[in-house]
Amino acid sequence: MAPTPRRARRRLQLPLLCLLLQGATAILFAVFVRYNRETDAALWHGGNHSNADNEFYFRYPSFQDVHTMVFVGFGFLMAFLQRYGFSSVGFTFLLAAFALQWSTLVQGFLHSFHGRHIHVGVESMINADFCAGAVLISFGAVLGKTGPAQLLLMALLEVALFGINEFVLLSLLGVRDAGGSMTIHTFGAYFGLVLSRVLYRPQLEKSKHRQGSVYHSDLFAMIGTIFLWIFWPSFNSAPTTLGDGQHRTALNTYYSLTASTLSTFALSALVGKDGRLDMVHIQNAALAGGVVVGTASEMMLTPFGALAAGFLAGTVSTLGYKFFTPVLESKFKVQDTCGVHNLHGMPGVLGALLGVLVAGLATHDAYGDGLQSVFPLIAEGRRSATAQAMYQLFGLFVTLTVASVGGSVGGCLLKLPFLDAPPDSQCYEDRIYWEVPGEHEDEAQGPLRAEELDTQA
Amino acid sequence: MAPTPRRARRRLQLPLLCLLLQGATAILFAVFVRYNRETDAALWHGGNHSNADNEFYFRYPSFQDVHTMVFVGFGFLMAFLQRYGFSSVGFTFLLAAFALQWSTLVQGFLHSFHGRHIHVGVESMINADFCAGAVLISFGAVLGKTGPAQLLLMALLEVALFGINEFVLLSLLGVRDAGGSMTIHTFGAYFGLVLSRVLYRPQLEKSKHRQGSVYHSDLFAMIGTIFLWIFWPSFNSAPTTLGDGQHRTALNTYYSLTASTLSTFALSALVGKDGRLDMVHIQNAALAGGVVVGTASEMMLTPFGALAAGFLAGTVSTLGYKFFTPVLESKFKVQDTCGVHNLHGMPGVLGALLGVLVAGLATHDAYGDGLQSVFPLIAEGRRSATAQAMYQLFGLFVTLTVASVGGSVGGCLLKLPFLDAPPDSQCYEDRIYWEVPGEHEDEAQGPLRAEELDTQA
Amino acid sequence: MAPTPRRARRRLQLPLLCLLLQGATAILFAVFVRYNRETDAALWHGGNHSNADNEFYFRYPSFQDVHTMVFVGFGFLMAFLQRYGFSSVGFTFLLAAFALQWSTLVQGFLHSFHGRHIHVGVESMINADFCAGAVLISFGAVLGKTGPAQLLLMALLEVALFGINEFVLLSLLGVRDAGGSMTIHTFGAYFGLVLSRVLYRPQLEKSKHRQGSVYHSDLFAMIGTIFLWIFWPSFNSAPTTLGDGQHRTALNTYYSLTASTLSTFALSALVGKDGRLDMVHIQNAALAGGVVVGTASEMMLTPFGALAAGFLAGTVSTLGYKFFTPVLESKFKVQDTCGVHNLHGMPGVLGALLGVLVAGLATHDAYGDGLQSVFPLIAEGRRSATAQAMYQLFGLFVTLTVASVGGSVGGCLLKLPFLDAPPDSQCYEDRIYWEVPGEHEDEAQGPLRAEELDTQA
Repeated sequence: MAPTPRRARRRLQLPLLCLLLQGATAILFAVFVRYNRETDAALWHGGNHSNADNEFYFRYPSFQDVHTMVFVGFGFLMAFLQRYGFSSVGFTFLLAAFALQWSTLVQGFLHSFHGRHIHVGVESMINADFCAGAVLISFGAVLGKTGPAQLLLMALLEVALFGINEFVLLSLLGVRDAGGSMTIHTFGAYFGLVLSRVLYRPQLEKSKHRQGSVYHSDLFAMIGTIFLWIFWPSFNSAPTTLGDGQHRTALNTYYSLTASTLSTFALSALVGKDGRLDMVHIQNAALAGGVVVGTASEMMLTPFGALAAGFLAGTVSTLGYKFFTPVLESKFKVQDTCGVHNLHGMPGVLGALLGVLVAGLATHDAYGDGLQSVFPLIAEGRRSATAQAMYQLFGLFVTLTVASVGGSVGGCLLKLPFLDAPPDSQCYEDRIYWEVPGEHEDEAQGPLRAEELDTQA
Repeated sequence: MAPTPRRARRRLQLPLLCLLLQGATAILFAVFVRYNRETDAALWHGGNHSNADNEFYFRYPSFQDVHTMVFVGFGFLMAFLQRYGFSSVGFTFLLAAFALQWSTLVQGFLHSFHGRHIHVGVESMINADFCAGAVLISFGAVLGKTGPAQLLLMALLEVALFGINEFVLLSLLGVRDAGGSMTIHTFGAYFGLVLSRVLYRPQLEKSKHRQGSVYHSDLFAMIGTIFLWIFWPSFNSAPTTLGDGQHRTALNTYYSLTASTLSTFALSALVGKDGRLDMVHIQNAALAGGVVVGTASEMMLTPFGALAAGFLAGTVSTLGYKFFTPVLESKFKVQDTCGVHNLHGMPGVLGALLGVLVAGLATHDAYGDGLQSVFPLIAEGRRSATAQAMYQLFGLFVTLTVASVGGSVGGCLLKLPFLDAPPDSQCYEDRIYWEVPGEHEDEAQGPLRAEELDTQA
Repeated sequence: MAPTPRRARRRLQLPLLCLLLQGATAILFAVFVRYNRETDAALWHGGNHSNADNEFYFRYPSFQDVHTMVFVGFGFLMAFLQRYGFSSVGFTFLLAAFALQWSTLVQGFLHSFHGRHIHVGVESMINADFCAGAVLISFGAVLGKTGPAQLLLMALLEVALFGINEFVLLSLLGVRDAGGSMTIHTFGAYFGLVLSRVLYRPQLEKSKHRQGSVYHSDLFAMIGTIFLWIFWPSFNSAPTTLGDGQHRTALNTYYSLTASTLSTFALSALVGKDGRLDMVHIQNAALAGGVVVGTASEMMLTPFGALAAGFLAGTVSTLGYKFFTPVLESKFKVQDTCGVHNLHGMPGVLGALLGVLVAGLATHDAYGDGLQSVFPLIAEGRRSATAQAMYQLFGLFVTLTVASVGGSVGGCLLKLPFLDAPPDSQCYEDRIYWEVPGEHEDEAQGPLRAEELDTQA
């Protein structure tokens, strides 16, 4: 049987897009990307290990932790769906690999374009991984309802807007956001949610039976949760100032996460049927403590402040899963597969507001010489603490605006009719994109027949 | 149908306890916990990277490895039970998150209470994770037979006693125990075993059919095993002296683990039916090499000594699983779910005795200037090597005493009738505490009906 | 029923071999192995942290990443088979543990035998893990068709030849191969493939039904893939010069992997039925970017060069899985279970050739002072760049020769009739070596009856 036009198109769409994007980034790399001073053999300054050399060694373990979070953490966290594990882990892999290249270019053009070249090193690796994290947050909102070619186009747009938003906040507005409560979590979540709103599928209940987890898929998801949880202190501290800055950021994040874990267990049992815990809450809301201190953890938040923030975030996030997610779908027509509004959206906004508060309270007394690292504009007398707080707030507003507009544009882009979106009855289903073996050796669970897919489309 | 009083109680017990404990630790944090010098912005001493700054960077990767072991390692190692994976991973998460906060306070009051404040930084993070490790060892002894509220109470008591025992050994007796053969493994194991003895359930065979593993739960457990195995060198070396001390500790632990792996495979096949290997042995006894050098690995054990110790520990541990665990239950009425006696108890005691031996053999010649770091009291002439060995032995005795008394008290506490223990017929069963999906998409394996649970209780 | 001679033999073969090998290495350790200067307490030079002390801290995180790749990465990558997960993860554990000890001795005798002792430290740990990686690559070629005693004998031989080949290349020929495109990947792959050729089983289709994956075994394998992927930059950079050398190597590897991921997705969908992706390609070919820059990533490859190399490797590897693996079995009688020819063989040879090319292009201008670190013989004027390129090419030839001859000898050794090879009908089957629980609680999937195994043998 000859392939129908639809299947021929599907066959070519993903490969061509991958090759096109890879070709384009490769050409741009050839023209613009060069090793930075600490990475280049010729620019190296002899055998003595100066601080500049050491910086690589102080940053590289953080990079590895962030890298682990992006690929292992996000990938497996999304593997909770019973029949979408290949796509969750696989498309995470694909999207992140592309985002790393593309954001190296975008961020390089915006931040480190000197002498007509982008100079790369460990910092650009960390920043690219951060951007990939935002893309994967958005992926969580549309998980199961979009094909890989659509996702690559989403990443193409989102990486560019992520870079611009980050540049506006950090470089133009002088906003502080080390761990990305705004630039990563709020941006990624609302970009994805608005995009999901545009792609709203009124007939999605046709795939409802696949939308839940099974026992072992929940355990795979816990691999993601725990790797995110343990490395979040490294995530928030990765781009902060060496020394007390990184130390304090890691410590605050560590405390915040312990508190969000306790509040998540408390609230999950409280609102659960017969006091039972819900795995979805534990997998996600326990992580909200890392999101909520993304902005403030490099500041003098105090250990108590970190606990309080984490507690609040775990509470809000758990209640969001229980009470707000259904409303989001029924009232606002946003189908948020992974609940990114609860894990990244609300805790991200809370984190931004916490940053406003803590920045507004900054004093020379509390920060001493460290003020220069955390709030250079205040230290240099160019801004009052209150002004910094207002800028932080404005940064949140900018982020929400860019994310919403970007998500709308992205949604329209992904609705282009020739793109290969799964039919309503085939959402959350690996077999539409993957050769899938059976679940047991003796089971002949072949792929969907092609006619079936075409008919249903 | 209105909830019965029993279910209403269950519904509230865990949330209230979580909220109470979190509230209490938060208040104590607000009053007592402050950033230490290397973490505080104001106490920071300018932009130059001195050794004090570097210390954070030399310790932080160790911390991350220890953190990974505690959450990924212990969590998944206990996920071998076929229907208790949610609880194994989930309660590990809950217990460890609470223990990190609570032990920061306990250890802080005992060790670093200066100027009416506890000062925290990367060292306190490592120490808190160590304490969480001991709590999780005890959890392994009672796995499947205790509810989360009981476990939190256990942790509340155990963390306090862990801190006191550690303070007595390290600070009052001048005992060396970097990797915690005594303070972590022996203490955690015997605390848990005595507690399990007090909670003895003569009718536990009612849950026997759930006590084994299934194929994929054993693979999840191997995730835990391997992450424990690879990071154990970092665990033992995390609190040791920078430089040769950490280097030697990591190296000794690495060799010891390779030998315990080989002896575990040898013994498992030797005592197995038809020469077949037993996954339980591989998952656990292969790790005994890390436990047995917990005290001695920072000393001049020699690479050969590390191999010999690891070999012995793997052998004893495997034989323990095969021959001693059944006796422990039938004769001593100790139901040791994870076999912590074999992985942490016996190897921990052996490790303490190995420490006695190696400390007794310490000479100025062998240690040179390094004697000051490993045995400061010997280096300063305040103790002979033999005296140090006697103190080490006394430290083991103190640990066993504190653990046994503590475990007894803990067992009585956990027997309080209003606490929500699972009935004998519902041990090793996630559904009593969790909303559990089916194992397959087409399976309607709903939660236990509430009447059923109440009747069986 | 009394055990038959065959089963009695099986019962004793693995234990005796483990004990014998462990005893032998322990004796050799006692006689020859000593702490090196940075690991020994007495040779330590006071409390000041010199660069020599720091080196441990700069290398240890790399070591931990490599260690994670070897045990978690290789172990789980091979767990894709539906009924061979225990063996894949378990024998990886056993083989690597033995290889670490044995290669410490072999490499020590060849490289660091001074004053009649081998001196060990973090470098020897990294090098031993590298050798274990090569052994596990060979394991991948014979996975499912060899017993643990056979595998230990294979490792005994392969570790020795690995050490010799590496010594010839790096020390005698002055070849550069930091990440081991030749010494690890090419060597390990062709050793295993030739060995698999010698062990060719014409009747292997008797086990064909077990040779595939099931849904969750593919997810376990993805754990392996992703941990290999994220830590490969540390793998290639672990033994390179501190400073810009490590920095550049990590960066090149990172870019190469992103490109091989995109090309793998593109090619897999292109050659897949109806444009569907194949999990085998994603699990393996996406990693080819790490292999292909094993030699060249420490050189001035440029970021674009890294992308191009990774793209090529992902393409060749995916096409290899699709088109060449079947031919390899049908025409060349090589049964390559994991497709190591596609992941390590061809990309390894390509990586060696890339090293020839990049070495041949080396100039003083491009490397500046760094030339001394990357190509000391060129920097010292003892070799031209072209000569270095020729030596690199000769190194590939030597590696292929040693691997092929070694694999042949190893194959003959493993065919010794008293060794416990699985029968053709019992390949890819855990139950022949392990006590295996059922896949579900209610399933009485007991071990194979002993008679059955003997009859089939």
